Amino acid sequence: MSDLRVFGLRGIGDVSAGDDLASALLESVAGADERLVDDDIVVVTHKVVSKQEGRVVEILDEQAYRRLVEDESMDIIRRRGDLVIARTRHGFICANAAVDRSNVASGFAVLLPIDPDRSAHRIRNRLERATGASLGVIITDTFGRPWRRGLVDVAIGVSGVLAILDLVGTTDTHGNELQVTEVAVVDEVAAAADLVMGKATGIPAAVVRGLHVAGNGRATDLVRPAAEDLFR
Amino acid sequence: MSDLRVFGLRGIGDVSAGDDLASALLESVAGADERLVDDDIVVVTHKVVSKQEGRVVEILDEQAYRRLVEDESMDIIRRRGDLVIARTRHGFICANAAVDRSNVASGFAVLLPIDPDRSAHRIRNRLERATGASLGVIITDTFGRPWRRGLVDVAIGVSGVLAILDLVGTTDTHGNELQVTEVAVVDEVAAAADLVMGKATGIPAAVVRGLHVAGNGRATDLVRPAAEDLFR
Repeated sequence: MSDLRVFGLRGIGDVSAGDDLASALLESVAGADERLVDDDIVVVTHKVVSKQEGRVVEILDEQAYRRLVEDESMDIIRRRGDLVIARTRHGFICANAAVDRSNVASGFAVLLPIDPDRSAHRIRNRLERATGASLGVIITDTFGRPWRRGLVDVAIGVSGVLAILDLVGTTDTHGNELQVTEVAVVDEVAAAADLVMGKATGIPAAVVRGLHVAGNGRATDLVRPAAEDLFR
Repeated sequence: MSDLRVFGLRGIGDVSAGDDLASALLESVAGADERLVDDDIVVVTHKVVSKQEGRVVEILDEQAYRRLVEDESMDIIRRRGDLVIARTRHGFICANAAVDRSNVASGFAVLLPIDPDRSAHRIRNRLERATGASLGVIITDTFGRPWRRGLVDVAIGVSGVLAILDLVGTTDTHGNELQVTEVAVVDEVAAAADLVMGKATGIPAAVVRGLHVAGNGRATDLVRPAAEDLFR
């Protein structure tokens, strides 16, 4: 396997509804004296995608925020104090149904895109048409984990890459069949990209270069079916 | 933030109890025409560390394997069919108490190191003495997630780096205090490294270069205290 390179896309600035996000991404790539090549994966935090899609809601007070979280929740999994662990319409289980008040003007909250896989597909189409390269696009959000402190970025929208790398039937160097067969490769890419994006640095996107995982995955492939869920 | 580079360490081969793992890592770095520099993070899958520490157990049959899983479990969180979600002595909650039959001779299982933070520290000391560089070491394992399909690598042993990057008090570009304050940076590094390591490729280690997260973190910092756990 070849080396991996991850570089952040700077200078994208604040994004408003209807902005041309794909062009902003391409300008940032050009500004870094780079160009996108086959198999590059462009990773974008959902925040700028949601803003571009107008998924920003004014919240007058804390009560309005709580109501918004309930509205965005298909199912409340746990509740403790102000913290709600909820299932979103997409099937993601996360804190506060992913309603977020960071990196948006005070008094507003950002929701997830309605269909983040479709958002990723739309961005990918634009980038591929402009560059002629075969690309992947991953849209990310930052999720907690029930038993591990700290948060990590995960994929909530995917286009042009495998979501899960299935090693079923693969044998290890001892000839045993691998026990670990399904790797959530897009979540690992999302985590890698977050290392150069950061939360407060104004770098909302990154390019991951050197992986060869082209495919037709969707982030919804990552949602564990209710029948397999031991923790609901 | 600067670019990130991730490259796999090849040619380490199989590891036995008492082998000189640090020297094998250094030989592999040299074989890639590289040398370790300040702030490099060396990521090693626990499998080779456990083997080097003799944490390999013969299992005569399926029943012996099940018994071993019970022995390694401090607490059984859920059980369904053959799957046991258990808390290990370290506090990690994962499938089968991390007892693993891949990448080991048939009829044997590999356990986690007794104290993976200490293992990481030991490897780091050896690497730093040999190179004169200030390094980080992360030992990884592959964990599932309750609500997301597919597995990702996480940090189970840490030395020389921050486990959690705490952004408390940091403001975003809008002047809001960030809601997301604790980033599990070592888990993101573990995930990034797995992208070049793979499960069946005989690449049990990688170098992550370009991050500046030196610190005194421990993987046990990542264990969520029972009082905060909503899913036990």
